[in-house]
Amino acid sequence: MAFVNENYLKLSGSYLFSEIARRVSQFKANNPEADIIRLGIGDVTRPLPPAVIEAMHKGVEEMGSAETFRGYGPEQGYQFLIEKIIEHDFAPRGVELSVDEVFVSDGAKSDTANFQELFGIENIMAVTDPVYPVYVDSNVMAGRTGKFNSEKGQYETIVYLPCNEKNGMKPSLPETHVDMIYLCFPNNPTGMTLSKEELKQWVDYARENRAILLFDAAYEAFIREEGVPHSIFEIEGAREVAVEFRSFSKTAGFTGTRCAYTIVPKEVMVYDSKGAAHSLNQLWLRRQTTKFNGASYPVQAAAVAVFSEEGKQQIKETIDYYMENARIIREGLQNAGYTIFGGVNAPYIWMKTPSNMDSWEFFDKLMTDAHVIGTPGAGFGANGEGYFRLTAFGTRENTIKAIDRIKKM
Amino acid sequence: MAFVNENYLKLSGSYLFSEIARRVSQFKANNPEADIIRLGIGDVTRPLPPAVIEAMHKGVEEMGSAETFRGYGPEQGYQFLIEKIIEHDFAPRGVELSVDEVFVSDGAKSDTANFQELFGIENIMAVTDPVYPVYVDSNVMAGRTGKFNSEKGQYETIVYLPCNEKNGMKPSLPETHVDMIYLCFPNNPTGMTLSKEELKQWVDYARENRAILLFDAAYEAFIREEGVPHSIFEIEGAREVAVEFRSFSKTAGFTGTRCAYTIVPKEVMVYDSKGAAHSLNQLWLRRQTTKFNGASYPVQAAAVAVFSEEGKQQIKETIDYYMENARIIREGLQNAGYTIFGGVNAPYIWMKTPSNMDSWEFFDKLMTDAHVIGTPGAGFGANGEGYFRLTAFGTRENTIKAIDRIKKM
Repeated sequence: MAFVNENYLKLSGSYLFSEIARRVSQFKANNPEADIIRLGIGDVTRPLPPAVIEAMHKGVEEMGSAETFRGYGPEQGYQFLIEKIIEHDFAPRGVELSVDEVFVSDGAKSDTANFQELFGIENIMAVTDPVYPVYVDSNVMAGRTGKFNSEKGQYETIVYLPCNEKNGMKPSLPETHVDMIYLCFPNNPTGMTLSKEELKQWVDYARENRAILLFDAAYEAFIREEGVPHSIFEIEGAREVAVEFRSFSKTAGFTGTRCAYTIVPKEVMVYDSKGAAHSLNQLWLRRQTTKFNGASYPVQAAAVAVFSEEGKQQIKETIDYYMENARIIREGLQNAGYTIFGGVNAPYIWMKTPSNMDSWEFFDKLMTDAHVIGTPGAGFGANGEGYFRLTAFGTRENTIKAIDRIKKM
Repeated sequence: MAFVNENYLKLSGSYLFSEIARRVSQFKANNPEADIIRLGIGDVTRPLPPAVIEAMHKGVEEMGSAETFRGYGPEQGYQFLIEKIIEHDFAPRGVELSVDEVFVSDGAKSDTANFQELFGIENIMAVTDPVYPVYVDSNVMAGRTGKFNSEKGQYETIVYLPCNEKNGMKPSLPETHVDMIYLCFPNNPTGMTLSKEELKQWVDYARENRAILLFDAAYEAFIREEGVPHSIFEIEGAREVAVEFRSFSKTAGFTGTRCAYTIVPKEVMVYDSKGAAHSLNQLWLRRQTTKFNGASYPVQAAAVAVFSEEGKQQIKETIDYYMENARIIREGLQNAGYTIFGGVNAPYIWMKTPSNMDSWEFFDKLMTDAHVIGTPGAGFGANGEGYFRLTAFGTRENTIKAIDRIKKM
């Protein structure tokens, strides 16, 4: 008799965005005429930049002729892309990487979900709360957590690091020992960042405790303020203890095109029960060569154009566009008397629900009264209750319209 | 202190194809003038069909304009592709599927490697021997096996089903109880198939034992003989116990473009320790929505063209081309006195090494004397020792040249 992985049975409810989709689809069925504006899922709306489109057409063209056709590529990505990543995303910030420390993939969601496989299930993990649900759910599925405590809205054995109004959405170091720490800055969902000094405390903690930092920097392209680190490897000592997840999704509009990459420095070690050190870089290489077959060639050919002069300029314009949306949302809501966080160095605006309203209740109210879809904070964790996420990825027109409608509520 | 997943430390040696790449690269360094012919890794060489290229260009074009741009797609794949899959690959064979039983992905390697996550680690798994290494390695990484017994060349607790000259490469039912059974027909590496009657024995076994069949049909497009089942769902009762993996890689040249799909009927159940049944379809949906973000949109747009009239005709021509290579290899080696299997309904030819030569030794000999790269049978398992795999995916010219060289050895 085939037995189920019982860890899956611990999962609380459905995946956040599936639940939102279900509610929206039900609302649409009952209100077919409603002009719904979606500022919920963090999905981009601007097209791929012309330089990227041109490069992808060329990549497709190559696949159509025997002389230039490409079959299986390297599972860790083509060197032509990896070299550009290092040259443009890291070298200018003084971060040196070798080509075999960069692993190209089909997405940061896959990478952040799969990376935990390399760790023993006895490790204690820490996440901020609120948090991107994939970090938690992937660890629940692997059996690295206890049961879901529905009273607390948290899984047993996970160490939750609350981010709230009191600490300005900046997590404190864990009070009990942890081995794996997920950090995401600029943060999803709060839109907040850490300074170099603040991030250094985490690197120091990890070095002292031989813990690993799983650093998600998918939103680094949205940082506007000087002095905010774009990569954890700008922090001294991070090469010994950190892994970084990056993505073309939000930077260059690749959410439907699929390309991302993960940095695993050769110095990062994990330990076996006899105390022997094992290279996380080698383990990830083994994982990817065994369970993944590389990102699509035309997609990697397209991603290279993100680093061309035209590509960089076009991407900058798109990000400026989204960040102007962020300003409109932030200032509009502030003027309307809402308490808000983020939206300065990130495409996310994290707002307090009015009158301490329950966040799913506010979701339903916003959908019903303003026909605007956001994301209820409770979907990101117990400490997200009482908060609500809006994203700057809508069109300008819709963003303005949505804020006007919310103001009139 | 972060602990490693010690199951990774059980893995024996490096991934087969990485080891081949290493040896070839060393040989090339020492013999830069050698005209190496690769009939090793099962990778296609013919370009994508014109209909597919045209559809992919259109898909790319759509990503370049705001009106037609697509962000995140459904994790389980676009319905426009799923409907075509059902209509063309299953309905004509009398197999009825609903759209939510088909999950599109970036590759059958990922799917066959990831699917085991849904099962408890206490399940006993069976594989044929020789076997595609991904089934074994992914289960080793998950902790579903014991240690590697280097004397036997096998992992403890896995039930190996030998395929050899004596049984015509057709596995017998397991003699001890098993819960998960990986089957691949047309087989990689042996190139052999099972008849409907033979496959029915496996379905019956699974139904009697509430075991699950993980059926890899990535090579079904190469079946030339009537009466050989293309899908396990052509067998009565399979919907209760089987999952099927399909791929565009070999069918339509997508090895570098990346698209595949997995069929999970709603009737397939796995059980918890209290005996309650859980739907594998729902578990896989949860896994994919949490840990995967869908296949690239232009790639799915391209895959649809595989089912157009032009696409089907163009693909048929490519498969005919490869199968003519298979005939050349099969007959050439038979005439030269080799004992061979497969190559009739599959792009793989499985040959006995001459004079009971060790398969890595034969690999080195073929590389050195004929400059031909194949795959040593031992890389596919203990029972692969003494055998060698050649593939029909080379160019016509290289295939003829390689067989001539082998004949002269």
